Amino acid sequence: MAISLAHFGVDSHFVTRLPPNPVGDAALRVLRAEGVGIDAVQRGGERMGIYFVEAGASQRPWSIAYDRAHSAISELDPSSLDWPKLLRDVAWFHTSGITPALGPGPAESTRRAVQAARELGVTVSLDFNYRRMLWSASSAKEVLPSLVRYVDVLFAGEDDLRTFLGIPIPHGALDPASLDLRACETAAARVVSEYGVRQLAITLRENLSASHNGWSALLYDGPSKTLHRGPRHVVHLVDRIGAGDSFVAGLVFAQLDGKPLDQALRFAVAASALKQTIPGDFNRVSVAEVERLGDAEDGGRVRR
Amino acid sequence: MAISLAHFGVDSHFVTRLPPNPVGDAALRVLRAEGVGIDAVQRGGERMGIYFVEAGASQRPWSIAYDRAHSAISELDPSSLDWPKLLRDVAWFHTSGITPALGPGPAESTRRAVQAARELGVTVSLDFNYRRMLWSASSAKEVLPSLVRYVDVLFAGEDDLRTFLGIPIPHGALDPASLDLRACETAAARVVSEYGVRQLAITLRENLSASHNGWSALLYDGPSKTLHRGPRHVVHLVDRIGAGDSFVAGLVFAQLDGKPLDQALRFAVAASALKQTIPGDFNRVSVAEVERLGDAEDGGRVRR
Amino acid sequence: MAISLAHFGVDSHFVTRLPPNPVGDAALRVLRAEGVGIDAVQRGGERMGIYFVEAGASQRPWSIAYDRAHSAISELDPSSLDWPKLLRDVAWFHTSGITPALGPGPAESTRRAVQAARELGVTVSLDFNYRRMLWSASSAKEVLPSLVRYVDVLFAGEDDLRTFLGIPIPHGALDPASLDLRACETAAARVVSEYGVRQLAITLRENLSASHNGWSALLYDGPSKTLHRGPRHVVHLVDRIGAGDSFVAGLVFAQLDGKPLDQALRFAVAASALKQTIPGDFNRVSVAEVERLGDAEDGGRVRR
Amino acid sequence: MAISLAHFGVDSHFVTRLPPNPVGDAALRVLRAEGVGIDAVQRGGERMGIYFVEAGASQRPWSIAYDRAHSAISELDPSSLDWPKLLRDVAWFHTSGITPALGPGPAESTRRAVQAARELGVTVSLDFNYRRMLWSASSAKEVLPSLVRYVDVLFAGEDDLRTFLGIPIPHGALDPASLDLRACETAAARVVSEYGVRQLAITLRENLSASHNGWSALLYDGPSKTLHRGPRHVVHLVDRIGAGDSFVAGLVFAQLDGKPLDQALRFAVAASALKQTIPGDFNRVSVAEVERLGDAEDGGRVRR
Amino acid sequence: MAISLAHFGVDSHFVTRLPPNPVGDAALRVLRAEGVGIDAVQRGGERMGIYFVEAGASQRPWSIAYDRAHSAISELDPSSLDWPKLLRDVAWFHTSGITPALGPGPAESTRRAVQAARELGVTVSLDFNYRRMLWSASSAKEVLPSLVRYVDVLFAGEDDLRTFLGIPIPHGALDPASLDLRACETAAARVVSEYGVRQLAITLRENLSASHNGWSALLYDGPSKTLHRGPRHVVHLVDRIGAGDSFVAGLVFAQLDGKPLDQALRFAVAASALKQTIPGDFNRVSVAEVERLGDAEDGGRVRR
Amino acid sequence: MAISLAHFGVDSHFVTRLPPNPVGDAALRVLRAEGVGIDAVQRGGERMGIYFVEAGASQRPWSIAYDRAHSAISELDPSSLDWPKLLRDVAWFHTSGITPALGPGPAESTRRAVQAARELGVTVSLDFNYRRMLWSASSAKEVLPSLVRYVDVLFAGEDDLRTFLGIPIPHGALDPASLDLRACETAAARVVSEYGVRQLAITLRENLSASHNGWSALLYDGPSKTLHRGPRHVVHLVDRIGAGDSFVAGLVFAQLDGKPLDQALRFAVAASALKQTIPGDFNRVSVAEVERLGDAEDGGRVRR
Repeated sequence: MAISLAHFGVDSHFVTRLPPNPVGDAALRVLRAEGVGIDAVQRGGERMGIYFVEAGASQRPWSIAYDRAHSAISELDPSSLDWPKLLRDVAWFHTSGITPALGPGPAESTRRAVQAARELGVTVSLDFNYRRMLWSASSAKEVLPSLVRYVDVLFAGEDDLRTFLGIPIPHGALDPASLDLRACETAAARVVSEYGVRQLAITLRENLSASHNGWSALLYDGPSKTLHRGPRHVVHLVDRIGAGDSFVAGLVFAQLDGKPLDQALRFAVAASALKQTIPGDFNRVSVAEVERLGDAEDGGRVRR
Repeated sequence: MAISLAHFGVDSHFVTRLPPNPVGDAALRVLRAEGVGIDAVQRGGERMGIYFVEAGASQRPWSIAYDRAHSAISELDPSSLDWPKLLRDVAWFHTSGITPALGPGPAESTRRAVQAARELGVTVSLDFNYRRMLWSASSAKEVLPSLVRYVDVLFAGEDDLRTFLGIPIPHGALDPASLDLRACETAAARVVSEYGVRQLAITLRENLSASHNGWSALLYDGPSKTLHRGPRHVVHLVDRIGAGDSFVAGLVFAQLDGKPLDQALRFAVAASALKQTIPGDFNRVSVAEVERLGDAEDGGRVRR
Repeated sequence: MAISLAHFGVDSHFVTRLPPNPVGDAALRVLRAEGVGIDAVQRGGERMGIYFVEAGASQRPWSIAYDRAHSAISELDPSSLDWPKLLRDVAWFHTSGITPALGPGPAESTRRAVQAARELGVTVSLDFNYRRMLWSASSAKEVLPSLVRYVDVLFAGEDDLRTFLGIPIPHGALDPASLDLRACETAAARVVSEYGVRQLAITLRENLSASHNGWSALLYDGPSKTLHRGPRHVVHLVDRIGAGDSFVAGLVFAQLDGKPLDQALRFAVAASALKQTIPGDFNRVSVAEVERLGDAEDGGRVRR
Repeated sequence: MAISLAHFGVDSHFVTRLPPNPVGDAALRVLRAEGVGIDAVQRGGERMGIYFVEAGASQRPWSIAYDRAHSAISELDPSSLDWPKLLRDVAWFHTSGITPALGPGPAESTRRAVQAARELGVTVSLDFNYRRMLWSASSAKEVLPSLVRYVDVLFAGEDDLRTFLGIPIPHGALDPASLDLRACETAAARVVSEYGVRQLAITLRENLSASHNGWSALLYDGPSKTLHRGPRHVVHLVDRIGAGDSFVAGLVFAQLDGKPLDQALRFAVAASALKQTIPGDFNRVSVAEVERLGDAEDGGRVRR
Repeated sequence: MAISLAHFGVDSHFVTRLPPNPVGDAALRVLRAEGVGIDAVQRGGERMGIYFVEAGASQRPWSIAYDRAHSAISELDPSSLDWPKLLRDVAWFHTSGITPALGPGPAESTRRAVQAARELGVTVSLDFNYRRMLWSASSAKEVLPSLVRYVDVLFAGEDDLRTFLGIPIPHGALDPASLDLRACETAAARVVSEYGVRQLAITLRENLSASHNGWSALLYDGPSKTLHRGPRHVVHLVDRIGAGDSFVAGLVFAQLDGKPLDQALRFAVAASALKQTIPGDFNRVSVAEVERLGDAEDGGRVRR
Repeated sequence: MAISLAHFGVDSHFVTRLPPNPVGDAALRVLRAEGVGIDAVQRGGERMGIYFVEAGASQRPWSIAYDRAHSAISELDPSSLDWPKLLRDVAWFHTSGITPALGPGPAESTRRAVQAARELGVTVSLDFNYRRMLWSASSAKEVLPSLVRYVDVLFAGEDDLRTFLGIPIPHGALDPASLDLRACETAAARVVSEYGVRQLAITLRENLSASHNGWSALLYDGPSKTLHRGPRHVVHLVDRIGAGDSFVAGLVFAQLDGKPLDQALRFAVAASALKQTIPGDFNRVSVAEVERLGDAEDGGRVRR
């Protein structure tokens, strides 16, 4: 997310905790190389969470093995981060539901962060990213909805809306194969009215095969009560990891850049489609590269 | 075949002959790494047969150069293998038409093996695998049909049935583009009645391009006089080598596991489709991975 | 071009200028490895032009960064090449519009070459290859049309015909998506009558995605006033660089080999489709490999 | 250790605990590939300990970053291993001081193991391997000496003897640069008499540079009251990791094989010298390869 | 140089000119990754100079082929850099004789830089680095001595002193094999008195083989009229490129850090010895790593 | 040999037999890339001999596994090569004792070659290269001495002289560790007088370790009755394979080039020392590179 924004020319900073060992040094070096501000990276803890990924192909799915138990960030002391200071002069703060899932420290720290951001008038976005392997649905239910009250732009999926926010929505309404735009609009409007968020964004992935995916997204805007639907790209997957983060980065950048919402959504979908053609989990594309794809999509270049 | 079975959790052993040199040692090490029993591997001979493969792409076909003249296995002394002892407590014995093609020693040894297996009540399967470059059709005709008499499950193609078993079948009847299921059923029934095999299995490959292939299979069951047709997968080929062997392994495992025939065929087709998404000629997929694909195929994930 | 011809068994030679340093030595070594004659390679100059390429995928286009300013060939002294001697006993001379774009020396040398070839009865072909980044359209207009007068077989695109040769042709007439064969025929006939060329060849690329392209070509024959249309291949791109050169090589070889024009075009399209399935910018396919694809295309193997 | 023994043809088994995830699967696969018995490997826990290594060169030392906090083995439940059963029909049991350092579970399990081995008449060896980063000297002092009482063959260094076993020995007496054989003999005799071990083995490394090391060892035999000194090899380091384990494996094998002690020491030093010429931390050398080096060392091949 | 300083924790910045193309972007990214300030990097010009290196071994020397004709920096416009602004609050400015060799623009810019630095009280260092392939001795003679008048710390070799500064010194006096410390001291004193530099540093390389080099250095201090001689390291070369720059970085850091001169020299020699054990031309060692080598050198670890 | 000569600028050709398959094509391509003439390469046979090599290091020796049974060359039909035609206008013919060891066809062909060369006045050289694994000493004794009668320059070792040529020479006389120049001179003189060869060349290798070897050579000249002794290089081995062939190439080139014998020997030793610093079994060094080492060896660069 931060890396993608940095490649878009945004002055982005990453707040995290890395162990004071060579593995943490290497991670820091990579962030710096990609242009991300690292002043707010705390050093401490025993280890850095890592993961092992095996690329899928055709009928064989992508496979990820996480090894992040006891990572430095999971043992974060919430009092060690002075959020009002960290958020001074910041325009946008983004966080994900993975952080509070890591433990009580990160959860409390996330709460303090979004609260401080709201108080300082910083735009807040949250990507639900509920991970069953990290915490139970009941634990998540105690934490996530309370965070949403401080959020301006929410990224969530069908299950998230139903399970955590208690929004009634028919099963499959947000599945690309059986997309029900009306149901989506109704659900989104309820999220806006009940939780006070300004926008709700939903990505749509079609698993045509482990090599080819359809990729699109929806964006509901509260103030104008409009549901925008982004273009659909059929992506020959090079590396699907990082699609969600690059979508967030695209939408954040496009709004900071003052683009109208339909163009912003178009930009975010194109950015995250491009990400999936790049090995590794960084989206190194520039604004110009994203816009070139955005323009091309009406031509014959993109397969629909 | 043996490797794929080992990954399915079957106690599988490989009977072969490897030269007593570092190349043979390396081959043995690989078998052991994949979990195959190597107690029955004989050491001897001058060299190990190898092959060089160039991966195809799109319009450019896969290309293989064999270098297996004078391999250790081709100079096998049939009296050096005590088949009744090797087959004791064995449930299934599989062999391929490549072995007898390598020379009189391997041919005689194969004959002794299937005969011993039949006598011991071991299920016998044979994959025809006729290779023009290894022996003439007339030589093959003298050997292969006589082996079939000891076979329970036969794997063969259209040309094999016509040329070696003398089964009349219209040209193209087993070509996926002009598949004639009735002709197939008639032919299979004759193989069963004339040669006494229990099942006949036929794989179906469509060369959509050197990168994309359609992949499916048929299974005729003698006792129930039923022709089962497996699902069709469109595979983005990573490595097509080993597809036939992994199909055999899938069918052998599924039957040993007691699956009904249509599920067994479904399993075998899925297993061999997955193989073709894996680099190298080993099928390292687990039963769970194959079954996950088998379930998914009714959903939107597999392209039909 | 020369490399592809060498792989077709043609005695081909490359006339160029390479710096007397290890980089030039390496280039020479590669040419020799591929079987190209290097007797006419001049050594001199400061540096060899190189380029950096980043492979595209799906929505992400291929990207090339040239670094060939001040290359040895760009500073060629036209008087240093004795064309009548170099062209003695040569059957065909091919050059490209890139060479004259590099500077006045290469431009003058190209002019002398085609003039000498024409005088000696050597067949001359020219691939327009207009590169905006190398020279302005007005500069190119002063040079390219005057070269065309000595050309037998011209390779050009829609813009080339309109801009440099002043041939009126509707916009998009040569775009595969809106192909206008009649307009193409009319335009080609005018090129033949106004510039005295014998044949005009046009490649047709469809950008289905950065990974999949449609690929075909047209060939107009002046003497018979016939427009031939080649088959269409959908190529899963491995490396699209070198497609044009390998098309030229295919057409040159097929005509030297005495193939009828429709077969020659078929051969050239197949050869250049195969090139795009090979990493690197050399087309190492043999005549047999090209012909095998040519035959297969009526079967089910190639996707249309 | 177990791997090296397996390559010497010994039927060796590894008792450890690996997490039930793909990382644990991969580790198991590697053990099996190298021929180690894996029946006693327990599956459980959250993660597998890993380490990152940067090879040193010349003046730049080798650098290792451990990431094994909370590894599966560190959370071993001592009651989960039935040592008397595991050690049935076993000739030799080896363990290292790293295991008890990992936590109370492993420590207790190690204690039970050596006790059971002693009771069953299994030869027990222990490599002190004290690691400051894993536990304090005072914690180690509570555990290690009590284990030594069950040990037949002890592998230790100068600091280990002084700090944990309370054996007085002059500083530097076991440093190759100031080796004091008499002091060593006296100290070893005290270890034998006070702790009841049968043999004490000490490796000697000279850091000539990070690329070249002198390598040798001493072996004190209690029954014969003899100090054997091994040959010295100057090793051009390819990978120094695993030197200690391969020395242990050499000494264990040579004694199981019935070699006299001076030959056994010679064998162990040669085996571990060879290890350091092999990339990775496995010693894949065969008995014949070790013996060839042992013989050669009196010739001109090994630098002294 | 700047990279090495950044790894020592110094806030270092690089003033250069890079072309506005992907190659320049990549270079910038690397500088940023290593922690070097890039605010003063100018974008412009046609190309970035590159070089090709073939590592030597034993009797086969290292071989470098430069391809930096017409690089962006060689066409620098001296008026485009506002040195007084760039040097504000800077403690030390270092430049090399390679820059003025690249053309009149870089030469004039270097002159302005050292002049501005002197006026602002910034310490100035210059590494002669005379390259015969870049300019003639007579051209260099017109430029280099005039720069020396603004220099505080000069890095030079025997030929540089004799040829460009006109200092009489016996042939071979600074050759490690025939080192004449007295002659060196006399020569250094003359450089100090005639050119007003404060310190003169000289590196000493012994070509024992292309794989092993002796490495040391001398430092003459003008104010105390003392010649310091650094320790000698025998380095097993991994990559000898960058030795000189890392020596400069070591000496600059150590003096900024307030180390006494003999320790500073010791640090610089150790830092540059370590560099030669690291692949690539960056010295990524930390202060702690250098100091550890500095301490170790009196022990047995480093070969003398 | 032929490749090394080609890099020295000599017009060299290789007479061999390669199978008409992709492996043979690849070998041919490599020869051509290195500049060797391939007109005399016969295509035929079943397979190309290959070998697998594992690089040694320090105490671990280099290990080679040959796989060349039934290679194309071993089944050469002697009547298929018209030696008088192949040797027309040739200055020097070199062969090795490996060829006749491969079978009766190659042996007879070698005999015809040296006989034809002698008749045509072509200089003949033979490298004994006796390989125990290819033929017995008694078989070799029937063939090799009869070839020597046609040889001008013989390359042999101590055992070769004693066993095959029956020259009495004390054991170890040609071992670098116990070199007896007088005995060598006596033996060489007998080879000259008894077999009519003009020169006898002997390489001297000292196995300091698997990483470092001493390397030198002797050359006895019959006409002048002089024994020349070459310089000694201590080589840090990168790849020791091909040392003998590159020594031959050096001596052949130097004599064709008209160098005096001591310089020729110096050149040959330097060339083959350099070979051992190059990965792979080709010696790609140029004459200038060899001469540079030859000159340097009196300086401090080469370790003695």
